[in-house]
Amino acid sequence: MALPLTSTPSADGFYMPAEWAAQSQTWMLWPERPDNWRFGAKPAQKAYLAVAEAIARFQPVTVGVSADQFENASARLSEHVRVVEISNNDAWVRDTGPTFLINGKGELRGVDWEFNAWGGLTGGLYQPWNRDDQVAQKICSIERIARYRSDGFVLEGGAIHVDGEGMLLTTEECLLNPNRNPHLNKIEIEARLKTYLNVEKVLWVPEGIFNDETNGHIDNMACFVAPGKIALAWTDDERDPQYQRSLTALQYLESQRDAKGRKLEVTKVPLPSPLVQTEDEVDGIDRAFHAWPRRAGERMAASYINFLMVNGGIIMPSFNDPMDEIAANIISSLCPERDIVQLPGREILLGGGNIHCITQQQPVA
Amino acid sequence: MALPLTSTPSADGFYMPAEWAAQSQTWMLWPERPDNWRFGAKPAQKAYLAVAEAIARFQPVTVGVSADQFENASARLSEHVRVVEISNNDAWVRDTGPTFLINGKGELRGVDWEFNAWGGLTGGLYQPWNRDDQVAQKICSIERIARYRSDGFVLEGGAIHVDGEGMLLTTEECLLNPNRNPHLNKIEIEARLKTYLNVEKVLWVPEGIFNDETNGHIDNMACFVAPGKIALAWTDDERDPQYQRSLTALQYLESQRDAKGRKLEVTKVPLPSPLVQTEDEVDGIDRAFHAWPRRAGERMAASYINFLMVNGGIIMPSFNDPMDEIAANIISSLCPERDIVQLPGREILLGGGNIHCITQQQPVA
Repeated sequence: MALPLTSTPSADGFYMPAEWAAQSQTWMLWPERPDNWRFGAKPAQKAYLAVAEAIARFQPVTVGVSADQFENASARLSEHVRVVEISNNDAWVRDTGPTFLINGKGELRGVDWEFNAWGGLTGGLYQPWNRDDQVAQKICSIERIARYRSDGFVLEGGAIHVDGEGMLLTTEECLLNPNRNPHLNKIEIEARLKTYLNVEKVLWVPEGIFNDETNGHIDNMACFVAPGKIALAWTDDERDPQYQRSLTALQYLESQRDAKGRKLEVTKVPLPSPLVQTEDEVDGIDRAFHAWPRRAGERMAASYINFLMVNGGIIMPSFNDPMDEIAANIISSLCPERDIVQLPGREILLGGGNIHCITQQQPVA
Repeated sequence: MALPLTSTPSADGFYMPAEWAAQSQTWMLWPERPDNWRFGAKPAQKAYLAVAEAIARFQPVTVGVSADQFENASARLSEHVRVVEISNNDAWVRDTGPTFLINGKGELRGVDWEFNAWGGLTGGLYQPWNRDDQVAQKICSIERIARYRSDGFVLEGGAIHVDGEGMLLTTEECLLNPNRNPHLNKIEIEARLKTYLNVEKVLWVPEGIFNDETNGHIDNMACFVAPGKIALAWTDDERDPQYQRSLTALQYLESQRDAKGRKLEVTKVPLPSPLVQTEDEVDGIDRAFHAWPRRAGERMAASYINFLMVNGGIIMPSFNDPMDEIAANIISSLCPERDIVQLPGREILLGGGNIHCITQQQPVA
């Protein structure tokens, strides 16, 4: 196999483009583990399939699937979706796939982040995670692109957002969590982000969404929608434990300038009403010692921010909530050139994430 | 997934080029099943690795490997070899991979043959074979090429050779064996070969190599080396059960003309001295009910004909036999423009085939 590159992206002039940059395809994985997805993952597979087919209306999609599910996934996914074999411990390619880099000279590379299932043996969501940690390598191999490996630095793609113009957005809650890189301090982590992603400035939002099992991934909380423009998950309910998190983020972001010196413009995107897992939903999940338990009545980290940009479109979740339309209209006003496609997100949310978490864009080189 | 095409290669103007046509890459699979390969397949993996690295000196190579062996194969194969995940029941991509077709207009397609493990439940070498039967689809999917599926017609790539100019070479022993297509007669089988491979004429060598567990695959017995020129496995020992097989083939082939009207020129390539499996070799193989048993003292179907053409080269087996050099010289004289690379073939032979069986060339579109 191609060994990881021994240099670094910043030394080689490679950087992560913004999600709105032109994309050549989207990667997904196929969910199947019955101790995370109810009813043998069949409802989740339907939800993932809807996302894949929605993206396929805008650009190519490749879905990685285990040997055991290859036949089923192949039979269900349309001819617009490429199916390849990629085993995994669960289907979160945002976090286990490569972060793609370009150099502005027609070349593409990937960062293969060290992965520890969102917290390793102290708060991680399952073990083992060895198949997950091979996903980025397998994707780079299929695409024949060179890869950097961040050995000694744990990160997930959902923990970062960039504007492609020198800025990176993340949360302290996740990146400074001792279950990720306890051997590194904030300055050292920031240095690695700058090295691997070739950014100039890092914005540290203190916390993500309340009760997010990723320890507050930024991609559920806030994202760039354009240079200098950020969408932020918001609630007006001061009794909601999310309120203080969003308020602190708003105050922090509005006090910052980006790498180009622009003052940041923050737009509030309302959250849906609090969503909790039902007894019935939880009961369809296999009980397993080595996977995070799901409990009825537990609040889920639902957020419209967990959307994906594709060429000419945005794929975002809906929650059968009055806020669905309001959130869609706000996102649409922020990205008026994009078609907004809203898909039911609850089934994906039950597994611990949403549309942005289950997708990974590959930019045009 | 992309559904199989509903048309046929001959209707669409696609045909299988000769092995000497320019190639874009070679496909291989990684051996691992301990009930076919001794000592946990570790010696076989070394032998396959040597073949992959030898080919990589001429052209790109992709090796498909199961999830369980991905890490090991990746660590051992050099940076010149692409490693992708492709589960399989055993590592014979000649027989389970696609037969690639071109149309002379820059397009590439594949034939995904129905596969039954060389004989299904009546003489097949193992069961199940469901992963094997998905290999061609997975390769076509990775390469994003359209595929024809031969449902209702069982064939393996090792059972055919073509000259790219209208001729196909096969054996009656294999294709007319009732464990392949008992519902089809010779005329119907020939019609399918013409439809799927777009050939004009089929040459039916009666039998392949003695005791070949594939039921006499042509690629162990005879092959085209150039238009109108065939290399044939040969022994001068009249007491060898192979003698009559080779003599009959010689007489048949010398009586034939090819699709362009050329009289066929047949060159004898000597076999090595008879090779048998040793007690020690057989003892390192797991005993399993659902796999073909290996028996000490059994004659193996060793043949130098089981070589692979690559761009500018030929990769052929050696058997630590005095005939090694003689055979290599004959092949070299038949293909003087190609470098001959000889690699130890016994370890692959112990599993039931040789270098041609474990490789599949992808022609330039």
